[in-house]
Amino acid sequence: MSSIKSPLPAKDTKAVTRALQTVLVDLIDLALLGKQAHWNVVGPHFRSVHLQLDELVDAARKHADAVAERSIALGANVDGRAETVAADRTAKPMPEGELRDTDAIHDVIERLRMIVASTREQMRATEEPDPPTQDLLNSVLLDLEEQLWMFEALAA
Amino acid sequence: MSSIKSPLPAKDTKAVTRALQTVLVDLIDLALLGKQAHWNVVGPHFRSVHLQLDELVDAARKHADAVAERSIALGANVDGRAETVAADRTAKPMPEGELRDTDAIHDVIERLRMIVASTREQMRATEEPDPPTQDLLNSVLLDLEEQLWMFEALAA
Amino acid sequence: MSSIKSPLPAKDTKAVTRALQTVLVDLIDLALLGKQAHWNVVGPHFRSVHLQLDELVDAARKHADAVAERSIALGANVDGRAETVAADRTAKPMPEGELRDTDAIHDVIERLRMIVASTREQMRATEEPDPPTQDLLNSVLLDLEEQLWMFEALAA
Amino acid sequence: MSSIKSPLPAKDTKAVTRALQTVLVDLIDLALLGKQAHWNVVGPHFRSVHLQLDELVDAARKHADAVAERSIALGANVDGRAETVAADRTAKPMPEGELRDTDAIHDVIERLRMIVASTREQMRATEEPDPPTQDLLNSVLLDLEEQLWMFEALAA
Amino acid sequence: MSSIKSPLPAKDTKAVTRALQTVLVDLIDLALLGKQAHWNVVGPHFRSVHLQLDELVDAARKHADAVAERSIALGANVDGRAETVAADRTAKPMPEGELRDTDAIHDVIERLRMIVASTREQMRATEEPDPPTQDLLNSVLLDLEEQLWMFEALAA
Amino acid sequence: MSSIKSPLPAKDTKAVTRALQTVLVDLIDLALLGKQAHWNVVGPHFRSVHLQLDELVDAARKHADAVAERSIALGANVDGRAETVAADRTAKPMPEGELRDTDAIHDVIERLRMIVASTREQMRATEEPDPPTQDLLNSVLLDLEEQLWMFEALAA
Amino acid sequence: MSSIKSPLPAKDTKAVTRALQTVLVDLIDLALLGKQAHWNVVGPHFRSVHLQLDELVDAARKHADAVAERSIALGANVDGRAETVAADRTAKPMPEGELRDTDAIHDVIERLRMIVASTREQMRATEEPDPPTQDLLNSVLLDLEEQLWMFEALAA
Amino acid sequence: MSSIKSPLPAKDTKAVTRALQTVLVDLIDLALLGKQAHWNVVGPHFRSVHLQLDELVDAARKHADAVAERSIALGANVDGRAETVAADRTAKPMPEGELRDTDAIHDVIERLRMIVASTREQMRATEEPDPPTQDLLNSVLLDLEEQLWMFEALAA
Amino acid sequence: MSSIKSPLPAKDTKAVTRALQTVLVDLIDLALLGKQAHWNVVGPHFRSVHLQLDELVDAARKHADAVAERSIALGANVDGRAETVAADRTAKPMPEGELRDTDAIHDVIERLRMIVASTREQMRATEEPDPPTQDLLNSVLLDLEEQLWMFEALAA
Amino acid sequence: MSSIKSPLPAKDTKAVTRALQTVLVDLIDLALLGKQAHWNVVGPHFRSVHLQLDELVDAARKHADAVAERSIALGANVDGRAETVAADRTAKPMPEGELRDTDAIHDVIERLRMIVASTREQMRATEEPDPPTQDLLNSVLLDLEEQLWMFEALAA
Amino acid sequence: MSSIKSPLPAKDTKAVTRALQTVLVDLIDLALLGKQAHWNVVGPHFRSVHLQLDELVDAARKHADAVAERSIALGANVDGRAETVAADRTAKPMPEGELRDTDAIHDVIERLRMIVASTREQMRATEEPDPPTQDLLNSVLLDLEEQLWMFEALAA
Amino acid sequence: MSSIKSPLPAKDTKAVTRALQTVLVDLIDLALLGKQAHWNVVGPHFRSVHLQLDELVDAARKHADAVAERSIALGANVDGRAETVAADRTAKPMPEGELRDTDAIHDVIERLRMIVASTREQMRATEEPDPPTQDLLNSVLLDLEEQLWMFEALAA
Repeated sequence: MSSIKSPLPAKDTKAVTRALQTVLVDLIDLALLGKQAHWNVVGPHFRSVHLQLDELVDAARKHADAVAERSIALGANVDGRAETVAADRTAKPMPEGELRDTDAIHDVIERLRMIVASTREQMRATEEPDPPTQDLLNSVLLDLEEQLWMFEALAA
Repeated sequence: MSSIKSPLPAKDTKAVTRALQTVLVDLIDLALLGKQAHWNVVGPHFRSVHLQLDELVDAARKHADAVAERSIALGANVDGRAETVAADRTAKPMPEGELRDTDAIHDVIERLRMIVASTREQMRATEEPDPPTQDLLNSVLLDLEEQLWMFEALAA
Repeated sequence: MSSIKSPLPAKDTKAVTRALQTVLVDLIDLALLGKQAHWNVVGPHFRSVHLQLDELVDAARKHADAVAERSIALGANVDGRAETVAADRTAKPMPEGELRDTDAIHDVIERLRMIVASTREQMRATEEPDPPTQDLLNSVLLDLEEQLWMFEALAA
Repeated sequence: MSSIKSPLPAKDTKAVTRALQTVLVDLIDLALLGKQAHWNVVGPHFRSVHLQLDELVDAARKHADAVAERSIALGANVDGRAETVAADRTAKPMPEGELRDTDAIHDVIERLRMIVASTREQMRATEEPDPPTQDLLNSVLLDLEEQLWMFEALAA
Repeated sequence: MSSIKSPLPAKDTKAVTRALQTVLVDLIDLALLGKQAHWNVVGPHFRSVHLQLDELVDAARKHADAVAERSIALGANVDGRAETVAADRTAKPMPEGELRDTDAIHDVIERLRMIVASTREQMRATEEPDPPTQDLLNSVLLDLEEQLWMFEALAA
Repeated sequence: MSSIKSPLPAKDTKAVTRALQTVLVDLIDLALLGKQAHWNVVGPHFRSVHLQLDELVDAARKHADAVAERSIALGANVDGRAETVAADRTAKPMPEGELRDTDAIHDVIERLRMIVASTREQMRATEEPDPPTQDLLNSVLLDLEEQLWMFEALAA
Repeated sequence: MSSIKSPLPAKDTKAVTRALQTVLVDLIDLALLGKQAHWNVVGPHFRSVHLQLDELVDAARKHADAVAERSIALGANVDGRAETVAADRTAKPMPEGELRDTDAIHDVIERLRMIVASTREQMRATEEPDPPTQDLLNSVLLDLEEQLWMFEALAA
Repeated sequence: MSSIKSPLPAKDTKAVTRALQTVLVDLIDLALLGKQAHWNVVGPHFRSVHLQLDELVDAARKHADAVAERSIALGANVDGRAETVAADRTAKPMPEGELRDTDAIHDVIERLRMIVASTREQMRATEEPDPPTQDLLNSVLLDLEEQLWMFEALAA
Repeated sequence: MSSIKSPLPAKDTKAVTRALQTVLVDLIDLALLGKQAHWNVVGPHFRSVHLQLDELVDAARKHADAVAERSIALGANVDGRAETVAADRTAKPMPEGELRDTDAIHDVIERLRMIVASTREQMRATEEPDPPTQDLLNSVLLDLEEQLWMFEALAA
Repeated sequence: MSSIKSPLPAKDTKAVTRALQTVLVDLIDLALLGKQAHWNVVGPHFRSVHLQLDELVDAARKHADAVAERSIALGANVDGRAETVAADRTAKPMPEGELRDTDAIHDVIERLRMIVASTREQMRATEEPDPPTQDLLNSVLLDLEEQLWMFEALAA
Repeated sequence: MSSIKSPLPAKDTKAVTRALQTVLVDLIDLALLGKQAHWNVVGPHFRSVHLQLDELVDAARKHADAVAERSIALGANVDGRAETVAADRTAKPMPEGELRDTDAIHDVIERLRMIVASTREQMRATEEPDPPTQDLLNSVLLDLEEQLWMFEALAA
Repeated sequence: MSSIKSPLPAKDTKAVTRALQTVLVDLIDLALLGKQAHWNVVGPHFRSVHLQLDELVDAARKHADAVAERSIALGANVDGRAETVAADRTAKPMPEGELRDTDAIHDVIERLRMIVASTREQMRATEEPDPPTQDLLNSVLLDLEEQLWMFEALAA
C-alpha cells in the first residue's frame, strides 16, 4: 500500500513494523497521559512531579517520532490517531480530574510498567529480522526504564 | 473539585473554563492529526508539507499547554486523554494509511477550518468574563489562522 | 510635569496611568517579598520553594519594567521608591526571620491573591480608555495567576 | 480575488484588512525613514541616535511582517510597494541630506506621532470585528509608543 | 555638504558615491519587491518560494546597510526614501495583488536580472578610484547572482 | 533562631552577618533607586544614562542575592523587605517625578558614594572574622566603584 | 602494518575492518554524489531537493568519519582516496551535467538503495565478531534508510 | 534491598547488574587516573597530553553516570565509593608524582587496555539477558577504544 | 622533584601546597560521595535531592581541578588517586546501598561539615604565605558553605 | 546546456567557469587527502596534526561549495565526481596505509603547494573577466596559504 | 631567514610584506591608543565614546592578527614589539592623562586619518603583486574608514 | 588631575594606583610579546605553542583592562601607550625574527617570571591600603602563574 520500498524481505518487514506500530501507540498514549497528570497534579510535591512529568512527555514524543518514521522507512504506514490510541493502547485509561501528587506517581508507575513490558516484547521480536530497529527500541527502553526508576524512587 | 481557587466569580469561571476545555481538545487533536499527516505523506511536495506540518504541530502543542494551564489556574481541571479527544473533538477523523501530498493539504485545511471556527466561538465566549483568557485565545487564533493561510496557499 | 506627550486624551491618560502606578507598586512589592521568602525559607521542600520563588521574582521584575515604561510613554512619571512601596502596596507586610516551607507557601498565596485581585480591577479600569494597556495588564495577570496556581498546588 | 478564504464575514474582513493595509504602509514608511536618519545623522549624540534608530527600524520591520501576513490570512492581498508607500503614507516625507542629531530626533518624533495617531484609529476599527487583529495592533502600539517616548526623552 | 571628510580625492569620491547611491536604491527596491512577493504568493510551491524570498530580502537589506554606510564614510549623504526608490530604481514595478508561485518566480528573475546588470556597471565604475568599494560591490554581486541562480533553477 | 548552623564561632557570626545585613539593605536600595532613575530620566543623554542605570541595577541585584545567601549560610536570617529598606538604608531618598539627565547622574553619584563608603566599612569589619565574606564584599566594591567612576565620568 | 593494537582477535579484526572499509568507500561516494546533485539540480522542486541533498551529505560525512576511525581503532588503516572510491564503490557513477529535479531524485534513490543493501550485508558480518561495530553500522543504516524514505516519498 | 523493581527476571537482573558494577568501578578509576596524569604531566608534549586526558576523563565520567543509573533502574544499588574503587578496580595503581609525557601516555595505555578487555567481557555477559544494557556498554566501548587508539597513536 | 619552579620561597611553598593537597583529597572525596548518594537515593524528595547532589558534585569537581593545578603551578605534585583519597580524607566513609532521602541529606551534611571545617583551617594556613591561594580557598568555602546551607535547609 | 543564464558574455563565462572547475576538483581532492591523513596518522605529534588536518578539511569543503555554486550561478555545470577528481586533480596521489606524523606533514605540504600554485593561476585568469569571482578565489588563497604556512611551520 | 616558503616571487614577496609590516605597526598602535582613550576619557559623552573606542580596538586587533599572519604565510617575519611600534608608527603619540570626550574624539580622528592614508598607500602597493593581500587590506580599510566616519560624525 | 574622586584617602590612592600602573605596563607588554611569539614561532610543536600563546594573550588583555579601569576608578589616570610600555616594562625585549618553538617557550618563561615577581610585589603593596585591589591582583597572579606552569611544563 505504501509507496516506500522496504529494504527488508516482506516477512521481516511485517514483523518489524507490527512491533513498531504497537510501540508507537504506547508512546503517544504515554505523552498524553503524562500531560494529563502534568496539568492536574496537586500536593506538596507538585513542582517535582510536574517537572518530572514533562521530561517523561519529552522522551515519549521524541521516541514516538523516531519509531513512526522508522516504520515508514520500512514501507509500512503508521496509525497515531486519537481513536487508534484510545482503542489499541497497552495501559489502562487515566482517571479524570485532580490528582494528588502521590496518586499521580502511582498512576504513572502502573501504566509505565505495562508499556515497558510490552516494549520489551516488541524489542525481542525485532532482534532477528532487523538489528537497527532493535537498537532503536533499545534506546526507547533505556529512557523509559530510567523514567520508571525515577517515579519509583519518588514512590519509595 | 479542584484545590485551586479561581480569581473569577463561579459563573464566569464555568463559562471560561468550558471554553478552554473545548479548545484544549481541539489543539491536542490538531497535534495528533498533524503528526499523522507528517508521517504518512508522500508526493513531489513531500518535504514542504512534512516540514510545514511540524510547524503546525509545534504551534498546537505550545498552545495546548498554555490553554490547559490557564484552565487549571482558574480552578477547573482539564481532560486531555486520548478517549476524550476521540469523543469530543470538533473535526472529523483523519483517513488512515498513506496520504498523497495534495490530499494531506486538503485534509488539514478541512479540519483546521472547523477548529478555527470553534475556537473563534470560544474566544467570543470569554470576552466579557475574562479578558486575559480572551487574549490567550486571540494568540491561539493568530497562529492557527496563519497556519490555515499557509496550507490554503499550498492548495491554491 | 512630564516632558513626554501622551498619545491619549488627558482624562484617559490620568485613569490609565493611575492604574499602572498601582500595579507597579504591587509588582515591586511582589519581587521584594518573593526574594525575602526565597532567602529565608527552610524545610523539606526548601529546593522546590526556593526555585519557584525565583520564577515568581523574575516574572514580577519583568512586568514591573514594562508597566513602569508604559506609564512613562503615556506621559506620567512613576514612583517605585522603597518608601512608596512600603506605604502604598496592596498586600500586607511579610513576617521577618526564618520561614518554614509550608508557611512561606501560605504567606505568598495570601499576598499574591490580594495583588491579583487589585490588578484585575486596574485591568478593567484600562479597558475603555486604552486597549494596549489592558493587553499589557492581561499578560501580567496570565503570569501572576499561573504563579498563584503553582503555589496553591503546593499547598493542596 | 485572493485564494485564501477569510475566517470572518465579508464585511468584517473588509473593515479589518483596510485597517491592516493602512498600518502596513506606515510601518514600511517608518522603517525607510528610520534608516534614512540612521545613515545621515551627525552630531555629538550620533552614536545614541544611530543605535536608537536601528531599534526603531527593527520594530517597524517585525510588525510590518506580522501585519501583512495577518491581512493575507484574512483573505486580502497587501500592497507594500515603494510607489504605494510614497503615495499612501500618513507621515510627510523626510528631508534629504545630512541631519544634525537634534533635527533627526525632531523629524522622527513628528512622523512617529502621526503614525501612532493613525494606528490608534485603525486599532479601534478592528475592535468589534476581529479581536485577534486588535491584539496584534495593540502590540504594534505598545512598541511604537515606547519608541516615541524614547525619542521624546532625547528631545526633552 | 556632508560633515564627513572623504579619504578619496573629490573626483573619485563623486564617481564612487554616485555608483553607491545607484546600488542602494536598487537594494532597497529589491527588499521591498521581495517582501511584496513573499506575502502575496500562492500555489503548490508556496513554501519554497516564500522562504527563498525571505533569504533574498535578508541579503538585500544587509547589503543596503553596508552600501549606504560606505557612501557616508566617503563623505556623501545617501537617499533611501520611498519616493526616491519609486523614482530612481532600475527595475520596473511589481504587479499588485495575488501572485501565483510561477509568476512570482518569473517576476523576481526579471527584476533581479536588471538589478544585477546595473550593479555590475557600478562595480566596474569603482574599480579604478576605490578598490575597497569595488570589493564591497563584488560581495553584493556574489550574493545577488547566487539568488538569481536559485530563482532561475526554480523556473527551469 | 535560624535552623542553619554557622561554620563560624558565635561572635564572629554576629559581626559578619551584621555587616552583611547592612550591605544587603543598601544593595536593594540601590537597585530600587537605579530603576527609579532609569524610568524617569529625560534629556539629550537619555539613552546613555538609561542604559548605564540598568547595568547598575543588574550589578546591585546580583550582589544582593549573593550577600543575602552568604548571611543565611552563616546562620543569620536577612531582612530585605520594603519597609526595612526604607528605614535602614544609608543613602537619602530619591526625589520623585521626572529627572533631567544631569540631575539623575548627580543624584546617583551622591547616593552611590554613601553606599560605597558604608560598604568599605563593612568590608573592613569582616576582614578578621571571615576572609571568604571579605572577598565577597571586595567583589561588591570592585563593581560599585566601577559604576561610581562611570557616573562621575559622565558628570565631569 | 598499523601501530595500533586491536582489542579483537586477528580473525575478527580482519572481518570487521573489511566491512568497515567497504562502508567507508560507499559513504564517501555518497557524500560526493550528493554534492554533485546538490549543485547541478534544477526544476520547480529545486529548493527542496537542494536542501534535502545537503542533509544527506551531512549524514554521509558524519558517518564516514566514525566508520573510518572505528577501523583505525581496531588496528586497520583505511583508504578513502578519490581513486579508491572511484574503483571500489558499490553504486554506479552519476551522470554529468545539469540534472532535472525528478531525475536527481531518481538517481539518488537508485544509488542509495545499492549502498543500503551493501551496508546491511556488512552490518550482518560484524554481528558476531564485534557488537560495538554492529551498533555503529546500525546507526548508519537508521540514517541512510531515513534518507532513502524521504527521497522515495518525493518520487511517489 | 532496592525499592526499585527490575523489569527483568531476577537471574538476569543479577547477571546484568554485576557486569554494570564492574564497569562502573573501572570508569570511576579511569576518571581519577586520567585526572592524576592530567595534573602531573610535563614534557614537550604537555599541552596535547593534558588536553587529550581531559577528553578521556569527560568520556569516563559521562559513561559512569549512565552505567550507574542503568543498574539502579534495574533494581540494584551501585557502589562508587573511593575505597571500593581502590579495592575492586581492574587496572593497577598509577605511580605518584611528576610524569614525563611519554610515561604518562604509556601508563594510560597500559591501564586503558585492561579496562577495555574487562568491559568487553561484561558486554558479552549482558548480550543475552538485556540487549539495552549491551547497547549501553557498546557505546562505552566505542568511546574507550577511540581513546585507546589516540593514546597509542601518540606512542607510535 | 617537580620540574616547575615555585614563585614562592621554599618554606612558603611547602606550607601552601600541603594545605592544597589536603583540600584536594576532600574535594575528590566529596565528588565521589555526592555521586554515591545521587545514584542510590530514594524517597518522596528524590528529585530535589538527586538534582541538588549533582550541583554539589559539579562544584566539588570544578574546585578540585583549580586546587590541584594551583599546587602544580607552585611546584608541588598532587596525589588524587583512589587509594590516597580512601586513606587521607577528612570525612568518614559513606554507607553502602540504598539511601532514603532524609538519610542522604543527613549523611551529606555530616561529611560536608567536616570538610568545611578542615578547609577553613587550610585557608587560614595560606593567608600569610600566599594571598592568591587564600583567595582560591575562599572561593571554595563560599561554594561549599552555600551547599551546606542548602542541605541543612532541607533537613530543617 | 545549463538552464541558468550567465550575467557575463559567453567568452568570459567560459574562461571563468573553466578556472572554477579546476579549483573545485583540487578543493575536493584536498578534502579527501586531508581526511586520509587525518585518519591514518600516528606519532608523538598525532594530536596536533590530526586536529590541524580537520581545519584544513573544513576550509577545503567550505570553499568547494562556494566555488561550485559560483560556477552554476555563471551558467556552467560542475563536475565533482570521484572519478573526475581522480583524473583531473593537480596534486599527485597520497600513499596508502599508516602515515608517521612527520611524513603526513610533508605529504600535505607537497600537495598543498601544487594546489596553491594552480589556484593562483586560475585567480589571475578571472581578474579581467569577473572581479567577483577573483575575490572569491582570493579568499580561497588566503585560507589555503594560511594552512600551508601552518604545516610548513610544523615541518621547520 | 624564515622557514616558510613564499608562494610569490622574491621581489613581490618583499614589496607585499613590507606593506604588511607597515600596516601591522599602525594597527597595533591603533589598538593601544584606542585603549588609552577608552580608559582616560571623561565628559557627558563618556559612555558613547568609551564604547565606540572598544569597537575600534576590536577591529584593530582582529585585523592586526590577520595582517601579521598573512606576512608570515608569505615568508616574512613580522615585528610587533612595543619598541618597534613606538619607533615606526605613522601617527603621532597620544597625550597622557585625562581626556575630555571632545578632545578624545579629536585625537582619535587625527591619528586615524593618518593611519587610513598610509594604509591606502600600502593597499595600492599590493595591487599588482598579490591580489589576495590587496583584498585583505581592502577589508581593513572598509572597517577603519567606517570607524573614522563614526568619530567624525561625533565631532560634527 | 583626574575628575574622578577616589574612595580612598590620598596616600592610599597614591600607593595603590602606582602599583596598578606598574602591573598595567607589564600586562600590555605581555600581550605584545605573546603575539610576537604567536606569529613568528616555528617547529614541530608549532601548533601547541601557537595556541598556548593566544591563551596567554587573552589573559593578559582581560586583566590589563580590569587593572587600568581599577586605577581610573580610584582617581588616577593610566598610561598604556607604546612608548611608555617600551620604557617602563619589567621584562627585557623579545628578539626579532623567527623563533624556534623551544626558544619561544624559553623566551616567554624568562619574561613571565620577571612579570610574576614584580606583580607579586605590587600585590603585597596593596594589601593594607585596598583589599579589593589586592583581590584583583590575586586573580591576575592565579592566571599568570597558571600560564607560567604550562610553559615550564612544555620546557621540562
